[in-house]
Amino acid sequence: MKTFQIPDLENPEFRKTVLQKIDDLTKPKGSLGRLEELAAQVCMIQHTLFPHLNRPYNLLFAADHGIVDEQVSASPKEITWQQISNFLHGGAGINYLCRQHGFQLMIVDAGVDYDLPTGKGIVAMKVRRGTRNFLHEAAMTEEEFQLCLERGAKCVDLAHADGCNVVSFGEMGIGNTSASSLWMTCLTGIPLEQCVGAGSGLQGERLAHKYEVLRRSLDRIGGTLSPVEVMCQFGGYEMVMAVGGMLRAAEQQMVILVDGFIMTNCLLAASKLNPLVLQYAVYGHQGDESGHKLVLDYLQARPLLNLGLRLGEGSGAVCAYPILDSAVRMMNEMDTFGHASITKYF
Amino acid sequence: MKTFQIPDLENPEFRKTVLQKIDDLTKPKGSLGRLEELAAQVCMIQHTLFPHLNRPYNLLFAADHGIVDEQVSASPKEITWQQISNFLHGGAGINYLCRQHGFQLMIVDAGVDYDLPTGKGIVAMKVRRGTRNFLHEAAMTEEEFQLCLERGAKCVDLAHADGCNVVSFGEMGIGNTSASSLWMTCLTGIPLEQCVGAGSGLQGERLAHKYEVLRRSLDRIGGTLSPVEVMCQFGGYEMVMAVGGMLRAAEQQMVILVDGFIMTNCLLAASKLNPLVLQYAVYGHQGDESGHKLVLDYLQARPLLNLGLRLGEGSGAVCAYPILDSAVRMMNEMDTFGHASITKYF
Repeated sequence: MKTFQIPDLENPEFRKTVLQKIDDLTKPKGSLGRLEELAAQVCMIQHTLFPHLNRPYNLLFAADHGIVDEQVSASPKEITWQQISNFLHGGAGINYLCRQHGFQLMIVDAGVDYDLPTGKGIVAMKVRRGTRNFLHEAAMTEEEFQLCLERGAKCVDLAHADGCNVVSFGEMGIGNTSASSLWMTCLTGIPLEQCVGAGSGLQGERLAHKYEVLRRSLDRIGGTLSPVEVMCQFGGYEMVMAVGGMLRAAEQQMVILVDGFIMTNCLLAASKLNPLVLQYAVYGHQGDESGHKLVLDYLQARPLLNLGLRLGEGSGAVCAYPILDSAVRMMNEMDTFGHASITKYF
Repeated sequence: MKTFQIPDLENPEFRKTVLQKIDDLTKPKGSLGRLEELAAQVCMIQHTLFPHLNRPYNLLFAADHGIVDEQVSASPKEITWQQISNFLHGGAGINYLCRQHGFQLMIVDAGVDYDLPTGKGIVAMKVRRGTRNFLHEAAMTEEEFQLCLERGAKCVDLAHADGCNVVSFGEMGIGNTSASSLWMTCLTGIPLEQCVGAGSGLQGERLAHKYEVLRRSLDRIGGTLSPVEVMCQFGGYEMVMAVGGMLRAAEQQMVILVDGFIMTNCLLAASKLNPLVLQYAVYGHQGDESGHKLVLDYLQARPLLNLGLRLGEGSGAVCAYPILDSAVRMMNEMDTFGHASITKYF
């Protein structure tokens, strides 16, 4: 199995140097709050007192899910490829957010159930036209799983080679909140009913039906699953590619921007393969999807934003980027007490 | 007294048109959460389906407070002018945040107890070298109050004449959390002890002393005060100028970005002179200052960010600007279902 060698950022001496610099900037101690914490994290990741964010990328992994045959989603499966077409034309939510914040948008076909046009900027990484229906069988084989890890890592390498050192992960895949809920319950032990939510818009009976299908899918499996088995059983391809991408990004000492419910579960899964990945993660947004707060609490994560977004596509992560940027600019652009001739008042 | 004619934005028919457009954008209905609410608000303010944010300004009003003689602040009074000097050199927190987000920074001397250099970009609106000590007497006269309203409005007019239609308000003034706490308790009826907090860093006995001084200042006054009397009794000049600025900004149909504890209390005071000002307000940041959440709840306001900032200077409002910008771009840059040939899935 592909393994990832992630540098451990634990370094009390360097951290002390970083915090000293932050406290010497012309502001009451601690008065830039979360910006100060973020700045320290990026300094540790880049091992410098003058960090920089270069050429941010949003990697948008797209795939279909066999479980959609069981009516677990408010949206029909064809929305996956139709939205990709919309991404290519620049008219989707994530397009304008990427333009606004200077992100390169990399659209990856991880396993969409449609013949997408070639030569239009889609990175072709299709493993299969959608996962298998996990109500009846494993969503993917272990071979497919390995392929996804490698291809996700490859996408990050493409961005890295282009000068990128901060990468956001997003997804498009009708049905992927179902897969995420199952990953979450298996990997955290939190009961399934607390992990299942409305997805793109289910309510009432249809939500109860989604829960039933997931319950039965879980019952199909006897005993406890390893993290790899969890991912193989429930998919999807876009999610495992994100897992591989996150692990590779940490290996390359890049900052990882985590989006909503699905991507938080991908980070959770990545942390079960190598917990050091968590040191590189910045959580962009806490969504309304029921269960997202619980998995964030499990990871002891506090997202930067809470704007009620539930669009996916990396939108919450990209929206949070200016805050990360503010933290990094603080280290480079603020004056120190000594230099500015201000009474150090704390 | 100077009055402000603020247009009432209530217009159910136009709001319906706005919401229809938002629901026809290529995303699940409501999936852009707070961005959709913000977009609707700016559309109502500008009365258009294609809103724009032009030439944002951060108006930073600075002044000193006589009450600082009573040791109510962790910082000495000279920090006010020293920080202004730091603003002029570009090395303070608000400088880099304004550069990052394309804000013009207007520094206004509303009443600093120092002879600031002229011709260096400071807008000279000094009313007096600091307010009087409100433990013993009213912080300002009613004549000074009127002057502050007018001069604050004048600053907004300068920005407006430069093409600005979105304005953030910030402050610098050692001692102004004390004044704000008294405004808050008088204008909301919330008990003083819930309105007093650490300011720029008080703890323990010194915080208890601050509370005592404010308690005694309040006891000096017999009976109930009108909003104007509250502002005159407790000051400060920078705060009343912000009140005047906010009222004028609403009159000019500009978007008002509200910063932390002090500026929220200025908006509260402005709303007591004309409640329509609240329709124009976007709340940037909920700070840690004890009492800020309570005054926000009183105003039924939900700030966009909660990053533990307690710097003042308009920093929380300016940090929130990209979110407002995202909302506005949504209205201009996202495709509609019909045009994008996507199945409308809700």
